[in-house]
Amino acid sequence: MKKGIAEVPGIECGVAFGGIKKTEKKLNRPDLLVVATKEPCPFAAVYTTNDVKAAPIKVSMEVKGKVSGIVANSGNANACTGERGIADAIEMAKLTSQLTGRGRFLVASTGVIGEPLPMERVRKAIAEAVKNLGKAKGEEPARAIMTTDTFPKTAFKEAEGYAIGGIAKGAGMIDPAMATMLAFIATDAKLEPELLEEALKEANEESFNAITVDGDMSTNDCVFLLSTGLGREIGRNEYGEFVENLKEVMKNLAYQIVKDGEGATKVARIKVIGAKTREQAREVARKIALSPLVKTALFGCDPNWGRIVAAAGAARMGVIEEKMELKIGGYLLFKGGKVDYREEEVAKYMKENDEVEIELNLNLGKESFTYLTCDLTYDYVRINAEYRT
Amino acid sequence: MKKGIAEVPGIECGVAFGGIKKTEKKLNRPDLLVVATKEPCPFAAVYTTNDVKAAPIKVSMEVKGKVSGIVANSGNANACTGERGIADAIEMAKLTSQLTGRGRFLVASTGVIGEPLPMERVRKAIAEAVKNLGKAKGEEPARAIMTTDTFPKTAFKEAEGYAIGGIAKGAGMIDPAMATMLAFIATDAKLEPELLEEALKEANEESFNAITVDGDMSTNDCVFLLSTGLGREIGRNEYGEFVENLKEVMKNLAYQIVKDGEGATKVARIKVIGAKTREQAREVARKIALSPLVKTALFGCDPNWGRIVAAAGAARMGVIEEKMELKIGGYLLFKGGKVDYREEEVAKYMKENDEVEIELNLNLGKESFTYLTCDLTYDYVRINAEYRT
Repeated sequence: MKKGIAEVPGIECGVAFGGIKKTEKKLNRPDLLVVATKEPCPFAAVYTTNDVKAAPIKVSMEVKGKVSGIVANSGNANACTGERGIADAIEMAKLTSQLTGRGRFLVASTGVIGEPLPMERVRKAIAEAVKNLGKAKGEEPARAIMTTDTFPKTAFKEAEGYAIGGIAKGAGMIDPAMATMLAFIATDAKLEPELLEEALKEANEESFNAITVDGDMSTNDCVFLLSTGLGREIGRNEYGEFVENLKEVMKNLAYQIVKDGEGATKVARIKVIGAKTREQAREVARKIALSPLVKTALFGCDPNWGRIVAAAGAARMGVIEEKMELKIGGYLLFKGGKVDYREEEVAKYMKENDEVEIELNLNLGKESFTYLTCDLTYDYVRINAEYRT
Repeated sequence: MKKGIAEVPGIECGVAFGGIKKTEKKLNRPDLLVVATKEPCPFAAVYTTNDVKAAPIKVSMEVKGKVSGIVANSGNANACTGERGIADAIEMAKLTSQLTGRGRFLVASTGVIGEPLPMERVRKAIAEAVKNLGKAKGEEPARAIMTTDTFPKTAFKEAEGYAIGGIAKGAGMIDPAMATMLAFIATDAKLEPELLEEALKEANEESFNAITVDGDMSTNDCVFLLSTGLGREIGRNEYGEFVENLKEVMKNLAYQIVKDGEGATKVARIKVIGAKTREQAREVARKIALSPLVKTALFGCDPNWGRIVAAAGAARMGVIEEKMELKIGGYLLFKGGKVDYREEEVAKYMKENDEVEIELNLNLGKESFTYLTCDLTYDYVRINAEYRT
């Protein structure tokens, strides 16, 4: 069994099938999740920066102090649903508090935008999930938040004196510069709220904020981190170690989201090195990661370095053509100009590997940033041209 | 016969087939174009803002004062080709001057990145095109600069006392915030160079800088405007009228580029109105125009207003969900929340029209901006995953 959030000491999960999705397609998987902590605990959160925020985001953003967990549904995003949407999100959280007899709950939703939640079904599903608290283990909580995902996403790290476990969902409408998709992470490490917040923000920059599938920013993205506090105490001195462990778990989840990118057949790791500043490295990596021409070349296993170099320039972060060096899978393709290389060999490397390494050295400094992206395929078009219909 | 740049008084065009494209596929169309003016004349230009600029761009950017025309090739972009590329671009311009016995020439290239120009062939083609000067009429000059374009793009406007005619190419790697693709425009109106420059910049903002196909910015984009001066004199008093005519021609060409977007089946006109500032309107329209989810929904004829509203928010320009009103083809779909409408009717409108009107009223002010985009289809993926291979 793959471990996830349910295996963190102090965490109990329960799931239920409520038939929340409008199309009612029974997928043999749950669509409502309750993550509960035995005692109220500190939490940290990052949210989408989209101007249009879904109701559960607005409601969760108001929560301060300690919480007793998270209630989330898939199949309906409860976004662009006006005052009724807000009332529904508040009710989801309150009902979960009442039925568990615990403190406040955070709330999250994912799915189709613009439909009101079928609250009758949601209420029943919450009641059932609460009744089942403690039964959902391993991948089960992650399955309850899947939409177009093709596999559940979990990660778990056993560290000295504490564990960190998380789940995530996301396959399309994935773009960083925000909190990105749903990810629920818990640790039994005991941290002050401020330190917890700092750790989440730092780890988020290099994980969920360093991936893209299609450049589309969602209305519902959020990452929650709960600290049950049953394990080791983490103070300022232990912060560095903790944040590295947290990054490991979050990067693992972020990787799985890109791997499950809608229609994706390949993950590309875009590593920009030798940058003057970290921002330069990040923006150049991001522009390459977003380029449809790079993403289709990746699908076609075409070592089309011209598109990568052009995308790097399009970032307008001051790259210098003559200084750039580009490698794909370790093969040098470009060094201020085209170099001699065997195109067939590089194409073969791209064909044979599900993960393609693209390294661009700007030769301008010492900073670096790595971005993950996936290829753009026929299936991306099929999934998104046919979704809803 | 469709009129284009060759029909502007004072302009002569010649084309030739040089076999410049590496793959040597004989397409029964020319790949070299010379546009010559009878007398040296003032010009205005806008260039790509990509940090990585092709050799012909670098060479043309150095040209000041009057020119005698333009020499351009398709099939090879002469980009990322180092010092040799610069030397080749300079030679193209000089050879054209020598063979025509006229003044300086601007130079432009479009095609595959990173291959050196086959200069033997280019020289022969220039010689032939110069010999044929005056013979290429109507769509013929536009055909010489096509790459993945499926039709030649020309526009012509007869105004009082002068004409404006132009040609353009472009189908992929199209993204604004730059000069965008190749477009060569001429007028016989007589303008001071400063006024010509001002007119080009102004018209460019609403034409080539208001379209996108795939968000990929090219290394080779440029727009040249020549003024042969044989017609009416345009001073500050006539400027407004002239710039409107120029906009008409340039918008016409820009529309054709989006219509011919790689794999595109539909053009969407994204009109953002009621914005606080023009910048807000433009950035919101641009974000919607770039969204792969909006573009695939367009392909699927799915009136998925949620994706449009989410993209508007993702622009992070301060839109307010509760104030937004969205119409597709005149049908109201969203007014601060979902409204009752017949989804089948809107889907039918989308299916039956090659051009889809999307109007988003932000209800925050009086500014507006219109962006053109096309749908994202299987064929876009096919063309770009298979190009070069």
